[in-house]
Amino acid sequence: MRQGCAVIVIGWVLFGAAAAPTAAQSAVVVTGATVIDGTGAGPIRDAVIVIEGNRIAAVGPSRTVKIPSGAQRIDAAGKFIIPGLMDANVHLILMMSIEFHARYEGRYEDLIEEAAQVTLRNGVTTVFDSWGPLQPLMNVRDRINRGETVGSRMFVAGNIVGLTGPLDRDMNPQAATASTAPFRKRVNAVYTENVGAELLWKTPEGVRIEVRKYIARGIDFLKYAAAGHGDGNLNFLMFSPEAQRAIVEEAHRAGLIAQSHTESVESLRQAVEAGIDMGQHMEVTGPEPMPESTLKAMLDRKIHAAIQPMTQRRLKGLMGAVSPEWGKTLQVAADNEVRMLKAGIPLLMASDGGLLDPDEVASNDPRAATDLPFALGEGHFLWLRAMGEKGMTPMAAIQAATRNVAAAYRRLDQLGTLEKGKLADLVILDADPLVDLENVRKISMVMKEGQVIDRDKLPLKAILTVPRPPAGSPRE
Amino acid sequence: MRQGCAVIVIGWVLFGAAAAPTAAQSAVVVTGATVIDGTGAGPIRDAVIVIEGNRIAAVGPSRTVKIPSGAQRIDAAGKFIIPGLMDANVHLILMMSIEFHARYEGRYEDLIEEAAQVTLRNGVTTVFDSWGPLQPLMNVRDRINRGETVGSRMFVAGNIVGLTGPLDRDMNPQAATASTAPFRKRVNAVYTENVGAELLWKTPEGVRIEVRKYIARGIDFLKYAAAGHGDGNLNFLMFSPEAQRAIVEEAHRAGLIAQSHTESVESLRQAVEAGIDMGQHMEVTGPEPMPESTLKAMLDRKIHAAIQPMTQRRLKGLMGAVSPEWGKTLQVAADNEVRMLKAGIPLLMASDGGLLDPDEVASNDPRAATDLPFALGEGHFLWLRAMGEKGMTPMAAIQAATRNVAAAYRRLDQLGTLEKGKLADLVILDADPLVDLENVRKISMVMKEGQVIDRDKLPLKAILTVPRPPAGSPRE
Amino acid sequence: MRQGCAVIVIGWVLFGAAAAPTAAQSAVVVTGATVIDGTGAGPIRDAVIVIEGNRIAAVGPSRTVKIPSGAQRIDAAGKFIIPGLMDANVHLILMMSIEFHARYEGRYEDLIEEAAQVTLRNGVTTVFDSWGPLQPLMNVRDRINRGETVGSRMFVAGNIVGLTGPLDRDMNPQAATASTAPFRKRVNAVYTENVGAELLWKTPEGVRIEVRKYIARGIDFLKYAAAGHGDGNLNFLMFSPEAQRAIVEEAHRAGLIAQSHTESVESLRQAVEAGIDMGQHMEVTGPEPMPESTLKAMLDRKIHAAIQPMTQRRLKGLMGAVSPEWGKTLQVAADNEVRMLKAGIPLLMASDGGLLDPDEVASNDPRAATDLPFALGEGHFLWLRAMGEKGMTPMAAIQAATRNVAAAYRRLDQLGTLEKGKLADLVILDADPLVDLENVRKISMVMKEGQVIDRDKLPLKAILTVPRPPAGSPRE
Amino acid sequence: MRQGCAVIVIGWVLFGAAAAPTAAQSAVVVTGATVIDGTGAGPIRDAVIVIEGNRIAAVGPSRTVKIPSGAQRIDAAGKFIIPGLMDANVHLILMMSIEFHARYEGRYEDLIEEAAQVTLRNGVTTVFDSWGPLQPLMNVRDRINRGETVGSRMFVAGNIVGLTGPLDRDMNPQAATASTAPFRKRVNAVYTENVGAELLWKTPEGVRIEVRKYIARGIDFLKYAAAGHGDGNLNFLMFSPEAQRAIVEEAHRAGLIAQSHTESVESLRQAVEAGIDMGQHMEVTGPEPMPESTLKAMLDRKIHAAIQPMTQRRLKGLMGAVSPEWGKTLQVAADNEVRMLKAGIPLLMASDGGLLDPDEVASNDPRAATDLPFALGEGHFLWLRAMGEKGMTPMAAIQAATRNVAAAYRRLDQLGTLEKGKLADLVILDADPLVDLENVRKISMVMKEGQVIDRDKLPLKAILTVPRPPAGSPRE
Repeated sequence: MRQGCAVIVIGWVLFGAAAAPTAAQSAVVVTGATVIDGTGAGPIRDAVIVIEGNRIAAVGPSRTVKIPSGAQRIDAAGKFIIPGLMDANVHLILMMSIEFHARYEGRYEDLIEEAAQVTLRNGVTTVFDSWGPLQPLMNVRDRINRGETVGSRMFVAGNIVGLTGPLDRDMNPQAATASTAPFRKRVNAVYTENVGAELLWKTPEGVRIEVRKYIARGIDFLKYAAAGHGDGNLNFLMFSPEAQRAIVEEAHRAGLIAQSHTESVESLRQAVEAGIDMGQHMEVTGPEPMPESTLKAMLDRKIHAAIQPMTQRRLKGLMGAVSPEWGKTLQVAADNEVRMLKAGIPLLMASDGGLLDPDEVASNDPRAATDLPFALGEGHFLWLRAMGEKGMTPMAAIQAATRNVAAAYRRLDQLGTLEKGKLADLVILDADPLVDLENVRKISMVMKEGQVIDRDKLPLKAILTVPRPPAGSPRE
Repeated sequence: MRQGCAVIVIGWVLFGAAAAPTAAQSAVVVTGATVIDGTGAGPIRDAVIVIEGNRIAAVGPSRTVKIPSGAQRIDAAGKFIIPGLMDANVHLILMMSIEFHARYEGRYEDLIEEAAQVTLRNGVTTVFDSWGPLQPLMNVRDRINRGETVGSRMFVAGNIVGLTGPLDRDMNPQAATASTAPFRKRVNAVYTENVGAELLWKTPEGVRIEVRKYIARGIDFLKYAAAGHGDGNLNFLMFSPEAQRAIVEEAHRAGLIAQSHTESVESLRQAVEAGIDMGQHMEVTGPEPMPESTLKAMLDRKIHAAIQPMTQRRLKGLMGAVSPEWGKTLQVAADNEVRMLKAGIPLLMASDGGLLDPDEVASNDPRAATDLPFALGEGHFLWLRAMGEKGMTPMAAIQAATRNVAAAYRRLDQLGTLEKGKLADLVILDADPLVDLENVRKISMVMKEGQVIDRDKLPLKAILTVPRPPAGSPRE
Repeated sequence: MRQGCAVIVIGWVLFGAAAAPTAAQSAVVVTGATVIDGTGAGPIRDAVIVIEGNRIAAVGPSRTVKIPSGAQRIDAAGKFIIPGLMDANVHLILMMSIEFHARYEGRYEDLIEEAAQVTLRNGVTTVFDSWGPLQPLMNVRDRINRGETVGSRMFVAGNIVGLTGPLDRDMNPQAATASTAPFRKRVNAVYTENVGAELLWKTPEGVRIEVRKYIARGIDFLKYAAAGHGDGNLNFLMFSPEAQRAIVEEAHRAGLIAQSHTESVESLRQAVEAGIDMGQHMEVTGPEPMPESTLKAMLDRKIHAAIQPMTQRRLKGLMGAVSPEWGKTLQVAADNEVRMLKAGIPLLMASDGGLLDPDEVASNDPRAATDLPFALGEGHFLWLRAMGEKGMTPMAAIQAATRNVAAAYRRLDQLGTLEKGKLADLVILDADPLVDLENVRKISMVMKEGQVIDRDKLPLKAILTVPRPPAGSPRE
Repeated sequence: MRQGCAVIVIGWVLFGAAAAPTAAQSAVVVTGATVIDGTGAGPIRDAVIVIEGNRIAAVGPSRTVKIPSGAQRIDAAGKFIIPGLMDANVHLILMMSIEFHARYEGRYEDLIEEAAQVTLRNGVTTVFDSWGPLQPLMNVRDRINRGETVGSRMFVAGNIVGLTGPLDRDMNPQAATASTAPFRKRVNAVYTENVGAELLWKTPEGVRIEVRKYIARGIDFLKYAAAGHGDGNLNFLMFSPEAQRAIVEEAHRAGLIAQSHTESVESLRQAVEAGIDMGQHMEVTGPEPMPESTLKAMLDRKIHAAIQPMTQRRLKGLMGAVSPEWGKTLQVAADNEVRMLKAGIPLLMASDGGLLDPDEVASNDPRAATDLPFALGEGHFLWLRAMGEKGMTPMAAIQAATRNVAAAYRRLDQLGTLEKGKLADLVILDADPLVDLENVRKISMVMKEGQVIDRDKLPLKAILTVPRPPAGSPRE
């Protein structure tokens, strides 16, 4: 179904496995920029970054760093460098409509690849996909890792343990009556494998057995549902505490982190007590504020919290479009975010985003269509703006989008900061992000593992990112 | 809305508060029958029961019991007497359709009264209503208790703590789009008061506060939802274990028993561990059998289990009408019942029944319309048949429908057996129920608190028990 | 179901059949007012109206009219008198929801009576009900005519020949899945009798046979569907021209007028060519304007046109709430109204109104809730305002609401103007309607057939005109 | 989207435009078979058919026909030859589900080509597509005609004038809520162009203008909706008689035949009176039998009737699956077919068929899944069986599937019989169809325009005719 390996030649840097540069032949030096290294330390003016192979060999003020002879130079004078951005929650396939899955069944890998290229183009060098079809996701992940195609570095969870597929009741209840059973079952099975909603019937030990099998499939981290979706009156709790602990234990036994999907105060508390390492959209607690005791437990247990703040503009627009009950939940979430920020919970940039289907975008209520946090490629910029509005400092915001994510996912040894020995993922900006977080949009260059990305060519094969033809024209 | 107090004169026994007989004037003696007293002891041949006022003054073989002078005699030679039957789970209003509630909004008390008279007519002298509109239920309960009308003795729980009303998503999801909001909200509010689904958002302490208020409303026992309804993929768990314990503690603090609604192995286990005294339809555990450990915990904790067995005929009919998944659940429940019976769990007769709306009855799938266990007035007979089919002895079955229910609800001091000092509720049968449980249908006389019930007059005001006119005739 | 005959005593006038005044004993004279007699003649200042029995014995300037000795006098100096208003299109039961019909099944007569009293209270002494349950409508009509209750004089059509009942697909498609079949069929059958949608399958002769039977049921006029309802993409045409002619012929053979329900240019043309005497909402032609040829044919054939204009305020509000397609249809209808007015088509005041269910009113989109033309008791005032806005003179508007309606329905010999020999239906106003049509709201007195109506007592038994209790209070 | 021209080499006959044989080089002679020439004449034993180029040069008993020298011979001794079959009603794209159109939007030509190859493979050399997306249909039609691909000869109508597209209310009402508007509108517009349901608003002259434009698009024949679809309670009549006549006139003015979609006695009568040349499924008249007068009018006007009979087996199966009302309609249609046959109406073989979506097939009610008349490639065989069951002679049945169709569509000069000068479309059978119509299934060879079709290779590119993968395997 998918096309062959893409090789991109961009001047002096070849992209592609065959041309993977060796340290000897291709040391690269970036000079003259101000480096914000993600460690929290102050900016380094007139810095030099030496890259050998795919790693950082040195970084520091120009006076302290020796430039290897024969190195190729990138002059970044007047520019600003930050670590490659990391999105703690993406869904490289996000859509759940009948027509989307009918259209793209069997082409999921192409869609995933497109999405991972859109993120990379926009400075996000690493993404954590926390819900999607596992096998296609792993296939693309591995192709990118092998250099057979280009894209953000992917870590994948596959299904959210305990949830149904996209054409099933948790995600799209209408599918049951408006699509055929064979189609629906095929699609859902690609997502759920052995860890769908049928797990909810089982005893903790029964759950444990299935989760262990699923981990063996090759996931990079584990996510489970402590609550369901819906507007909150359904699926309040999913697994018993005993089952939740079994799930988390199995992740830890395999050396993986465990994260949660929660939507209420009690599901959040249960997840925290079950031993999760981090959680998604932890600010969402329904119409009830997050209890202080839960906030404290998160702090005590050093849990990282991925959150999805809205810009003020979006919140205002949404308030005019949603029910009072839902408005209450939105406001509580906004308040929880500020409380978490003030309390010192390590926050993670997370868009919860995917590429949107053009037809669905065109169908949106205009009041709910502004500053979409889940619009992949754009959502991470909006995250920074939203947190700026809430009082987060630019330095902290940059760390939330780099170092904190690496730390939460236990990848800080390789990723998240610009330090010697780490993979050379970085974004060169035209203006200072510490002055204005909007400057993160002003991307001059993206480098992943030491290779310059030809951003203009991404995505290589546009599918969702091209508009659909208008009705009736051109005639086929 | 409701009509005035009914006074029924039946020969030498007056029904009605004004005419409540005193012990002095109206000792009644029933002679000549075989008495199965509900204690488990063998039948007493040629027994005499002496009733003074509303209580049993003596019971025993004729040779051992002195008949008071001037007592009125009921000759029951050749007949068989059992304690008044007790249904551990009824819904005196059961229906959840839009049209039902539109038709009867504001007339719930009339419906409840009719239902409590249908049960009494059929030998059930005490019912435990475990879901319904609290205030109307209490009003009828109290009128019956005051002798202002006739009916089975009622104990009521009101709402199932944590569940929505009848026109809301747990019970009738279609109501949201096919009825007006003001109507729907009025009806639901009569049911849920302050303990509906919004409780699920709250912390255990928040739940406790609301439950305490609700108990103060005057409920007789407390029921909460450990699981929701639906075909099992929704609402797996509702309250966290901490919240469940808070609910049970509040019931116990008020001297009430606590019971559960469960539908899966984990919700059942959680309820058992939360300290419930009894549970409804505890055999329903979804497609997974009840774990041995849970069965053992129920035994250890002396939990009473109300169950809803089907006759073999019904099970067979249903199997042809339902999905394979649901069929699995039905079969597991049937197996669980046998396991519980063999393990010695004290089982309770429970119909889960109400009066059915004639229009809904006429709309039923014929394959699912046989031996309806939830058809009030009939379901308790079917229960006995179904348990007989499963191997329960007639004596045990009679105890399940009398003594066990009284014990489970902590009313054994007053009810459940034919012993001196207890309320004189009894059913006189024309044939021996120990020979054939079907003989329980052969009711010769029902006596409640020493008064003979004029069964032919019940229900006094037929509403649901009269057929609806056919389409278009007669013209209005 | 319904209460007994109501007798209202209002000073010197008794209401009720037993007390129907005779000419000899009870001549009544109204003096001093300005009379606008509905004939189109100029107002008569200082007029005298002499009423003997239920008819007008004389009307004219005081100097020309002899006042009978012993007559009772009503001093109306400074006031203005117009003929009793006539609404060419009402639905005394209008609602089509499941909950409405579940609530009121079997009580239709009470609702009809209430509605006919609301109209009378507001000056409408005669109404033409063009869709409703025939037998209940006839029963109330006859009781009013016999003086057993009070209300506007009713003429009824029963079902719209060819349409379904209120709980069927033309009116309420959702009913099919959200209500029980027995209930739905009962309700629909009361409406459709033998002239529902099944007629559409038949040949013209087959249609003729059923229509003849229906006419024999006792209808006062006949209405048939040349088009269906829906937003216009469904049910474009219903009966063939041959069948339409058969329907109209049967009406005429029985001495009845025939009227049409149309919603498009072609259904309108077909109805006109089929020989209808008048049509309802003839301005509604969909997004296409009424063809000139059809307008001319209406003129040539002297067809009366009942229309339902909106006030400018309502049209503006609605435009913000409806689809562009529907907005086009509204604008075309508004334009058609002006064209019909200018062309000299005799227009009829028609509210198409009924009493609204309070729950449905509370559920309305606020943008569509202003100046509801179909709110019975209010709609006729809005009609006058709307037509004033469109340039109709006050005199013409008053005639459209009186004389024209009587003429269209062939009742001009008895009704429609204040002339000698006619039934004494009149409305006394506090201010001059020729100066401002809003003054028609300033009703001082309503007289029907010579009897003063005690407006403050109407409706006698309020059902839909009382608010429903709010959610959950008071507890039952 | 579609692949390039396919060239099939089968021994001595090349398929493909470049290799179109000329008369000089490639006379072909078929010898030894019994020829049933479709004219109604008796079978010709030991016949010779001489084909020069794409036409029949001679046909007759071997003794009367001179075989050109150098002709290539096909020995058909012992076999039976009938004209190429003609299906008077197909839908090369038939499906109307959301998922189908999402999956295949933009690939309609591939589907059409596949379908036209399935029909050809099964002996149907000519098909008349009476509803589908016009431009894709014309594109495939023209490619086949130019010899760029292989398939049955296509004649196309495009949209049924007055009906909506597949994802709109007439065909798939659910699409409105379960798909996005942009997608739905694109798909529908490809079908309806300017002659969808919006025409129904227009005057006859307005309709005429649009129909004239549509004819100019290049349709081969015109079909319009005199009735809609639905179970018959909706869309009884669509266009007024005047508009119907305008539509038919426009077809005739352009030299095209006009045909109708009807579903009731009145829509059928209107279509007949409007001047149609033929009609589709004319036996379907709802629960009312076809009037004798209509039957006579069809005879008088020499109207050809395409019908869709069911086998007895299917009718029996369906009766158990459908409502009594629908069963009545099915029985009436079956009766009408026999009446039409006896009356001598020229009947046409018409499958109304298309390739079915595998997922939809797998979702069918088994009781309704037997002998599907609309299963393209199979339906025409079932037609013959069904009509045999109803008493049609094999000779008449063969003519209904060949000569009559050509005559109805005014193509008898070129097609429909095996006569000198006609296009050489023929089917060679292994057994005598006059003995048993089932022998038409025993196809030995199909020849279209003198070229032998390599049936084993068809369809060239299987899309709908390959099974879908089962749920979840293989993993992508």
